[in-house]
Order: sequence, then C-alpha cells, then structure tokens
Amino acid sequence: MLMDDKTTTVAELKTLVATFCQERDWEQFHDPKNLVMALASEIGELADVFRWVSNEKSRATAVDQEIAESVAHELADVVMFAFEFASVCGIDVASAIESKLKINAERYPIDKAKGSSVKYNRL
Amino acid sequence: MLMDDKTTTVAELKTLVATFCQERDWEQFHDPKNLVMALASEIGELADVFRWVSNEKSRATAVDQEIAESVAHELADVVMFAFEFASVCGIDVASAIESKLKINAERYPIDKAKGSSVKYNRL
Amino acid sequence: MLMDDKTTTVAELKTLVATFCQERDWEQFHDPKNLVMALASEIGELADVFRWVSNEKSRATAVDQEIAESVAHELADVVMFAFEFASVCGIDVASAIESKLKINAERYPIDKAKGSSVKYNRL
Amino acid sequence: MLMDDKTTTVAELKTLVATFCQERDWEQFHDPKNLVMALASEIGELADVFRWVSNEKSRATAVDQEIAESVAHELADVVMFAFEFASVCGIDVASAIESKLKINAERYPIDKAKGSSVKYNRL
Repeated sequence: MLMDDKTTTVAELKTLVATFCQERDWEQFHDPKNLVMALASEIGELADVFRWVSNEKSRATAVDQEIAESVAHELADVVMFAFEFASVCGIDVASAIESKLKINAERYPIDKAKGSSVKYNRL
Repeated sequence: MLMDDKTTTVAELKTLVATFCQERDWEQFHDPKNLVMALASEIGELADVFRWVSNEKSRATAVDQEIAESVAHELADVVMFAFEFASVCGIDVASAIESKLKINAERYPIDKAKGSSVKYNRL
Repeated sequence: MLMDDKTTTVAELKTLVATFCQERDWEQFHDPKNLVMALASEIGELADVFRWVSNEKSRATAVDQEIAESVAHELADVVMFAFEFASVCGIDVASAIESKLKINAERYPIDKAKGSSVKYNRL
Repeated sequence: MLMDDKTTTVAELKTLVATFCQERDWEQFHDPKNLVMALASEIGELADVFRWVSNEKSRATAVDQEIAESVAHELADVVMFAFEFASVCGIDVASAIESKLKINAERYPIDKAKGSSVKYNRL
C-alpha cells in the first residue's frame, strides 16, 4: 500500500500503529507515562538534528538530501507515539485539535496576535 | 464543524493548523528549529502531568475527569506542532509513518520482539 | 586529576566545561537557544534508557553494571550543558538554587507537602 | 546563608536538595524514572522561553531584566533534579563530568573540532 496525507485519516494511522504494537504484545508497556517518556526521547532526537543549526539554516537542513529522510522518520516516530498515546487515553485527535484551536483563537485574536510571537498571557 | 479521527485526513488537519498560523503571520517564526523547540516545550507540559504518577496509575490519571480535557489539549498541541513541522519541511506524515513502520518491522520481527521491550540493537 | 563532588565547586566545573569549549571555538554555537536545545536532546537520551522501565525497576536499571556508566555519562552531559548555559547567561547556579529553594519552601510547607506529590497550585 | 558557585561544592548542593526532599518525604517519588520525567518537564519550561526567539536574540533574552530571574530559577530546577537524580543513582557528578570530558576530548580533538559543530561520528 502507498499512503499519503490526502487520503489517510487519523483513525487509519492510529489503527496501523496500534496493530503493529498489538502484534508484538507491546500494549503492556504502552501506558500513558511510558508513552510520554518515549515522546520526550523522540523529540530529543529531533532536537539533536537542529541543536547547532541557526534558525535561517534550519530550513535548508530539514530538506538537505542527506538527512531529509531521517528527519521524516524522526517526525514519524513522534506522531506515532502521539497517536498511540491518544489511542491508549481514548483521545480523538481531530476533535482535540479542533477544540484546542477554538481556545487558541480566543487567546490569539487575529488583530492582536498578527505578526507577534508574544504569549497570550502577555498579549 | 465537528471533526473526528474517522473522517478527518492528515492533510485536512495540516491545512487547519497552517491556515490558523498564516492568518496570524506566524510562518516567520515557524522554521524547523523553532518548531522542534515548541515540541520539546509541549512534551514537557505533558510530562509534567505524569512525572510523579506511577505506571499503573497513569492509565487512570489520563482519563481522570478533572484533567482528561487538559491532557487531550496538551496532546493536541504536540500533534499540531508536529504537523506544522511536517508542513514546513515538506514531509508527508502518512508516507513517513508507513516507511518508518517498514523499518521497524525489520528491526522488530514479531517472533523476536513479542512481549519484549528490548531495543533492536540489543535484540 | 581525580575530581569528586566533595571537593569540587560549581565554579570549577563551569570553568572546566567553558575551557573545553573555548579551546574548540565553540562559544559561537553556545547561545542560550542552542544550549537549551542541546539540553532537550540530552534529556531525551536519558529518557530513552527509562522509557519502558517501570518505576520500581528504574532504581535497579540505573545502577545496573552494564549501563550505569552510560547513565552517568548522560547525566554528565545534562549537567555540563546546564552549567554552560549558566556561564553564558551569567547565572550563579548555587545562588539560583538557594533562591529557588526559598520559593519552593513557601510553596511546599513541610506540614502540607509531607508525603504528597500534589503540585503547589493544587495543594 | 548566601551561597555562590565559587565557594559551593557539588556535594553541598546535592545535600541541600536531598534534605529539602527528605523533610517532605519525597524520596518515595524520586526514583530515576520519575526524576528523568521531571527533568524533561523542566527543560520544556526553559525551551518555552526561547522557542520563538532567534539565536542572536536569545543572548539578550536570557539577561533581559524582566525574565532573567525566572530563567535562573528554571535553570535551578534543571540542576536540582539532575543532582537529585545523581544522588539517587549514586553518581558522583564531578567524576562523571571529568570522565565524559576525557571521552569528548578523544571524539573532538582540538585540531579537527576547532570551529566546527559537526558531530563526532561525522567528523
């Protein structure tokens, strides 16, 4: 099969990951605490790629032929553990994002937040 | 609109997040380096919820009525920044997951990995 | 030389690390942002060791002969980057700890906090 | 008492932190796994300060009068948990740093590593 973002639902990816883990009897390790630690570890690997790279250069680094694939795979690890966490906790990701964006829209009204990186509690 | 994982594609969520950011002129801040730092920060908030909770209790904590919504929103933040990172880097998330799972399947063959939490390089 | 915690001051360790970096002309990379990313990455490596280990077993894992040295070295990386961050930002670590513990003592009075892992804003 | 880096040993800070925790019966929560999660969370707070700040500006941000104290306190949290982790795992921090720097000196010989941010396995 060849998957892509346009035709793949979040539920399909959650199932794909959960099935991979169930086949290996890994549900016993996948409690929320462990999955958050796994996420922290995977983010650390992504941070490792960019730790000494400047902001400007990070755009080129991310698509550098030599490392683009490994960056994509690190990102995949992050999303997979995030989805597995969601599955274990009974979280509907799309619904949670929709709900959080509603809060963010109130915290960051366009006219106030436009072009600003200031946090909402200082806006 | 009411979104859910069954009917929402990754591309739809990526667009939702990217549009929210474009409306606020935030693309200037969203280079790969900054987005990875944002991810590290959001994971830290998720880790904060579970830092003193045991493995067993973490399953109950995650669905505790009082905090379930905030856990879902923290997870939403993680996924949103991961998707925004993917958009900025031109990564197709579904394709990257499919590709990474193929590698993981070789690293963790079912007969060897079943019931084990040992890392592949020690398996 | 053989250093140990009893006879080594924080300033000595800060100098040791800073000198190592100066000899390699690394100050140009060591701005606060990069150092925080390095810290996130090093913590990720430490998290990797314990991600699938239960709370009870983590005490044994940390002193397991096979990995104790690598755990100590990961911890060393964390402290070195924390000290380098302090040097770059002009932070006196001992003074900052003393000052933060004073705040923590107010947030967590012994009679209220004893035996509890509840955060101060819920105590 | 007024502590500073010049006159304070690592052992004194480890004892200070351990005593604070013992007075509150917190050793029960301070196994290596939980302490690493706490570290990930505290690093996340430090990352939050710098997530949208460019490399150049991060030097000014770190010493900005309005936030310098909170940055120092976040850094204090990181070091305290790192030291508490070391205490729990029986790690001598100074000795571990000395030992890790010896390895780093071999990985990054001055003539090869000077002015370069390339990782040792690609150097």
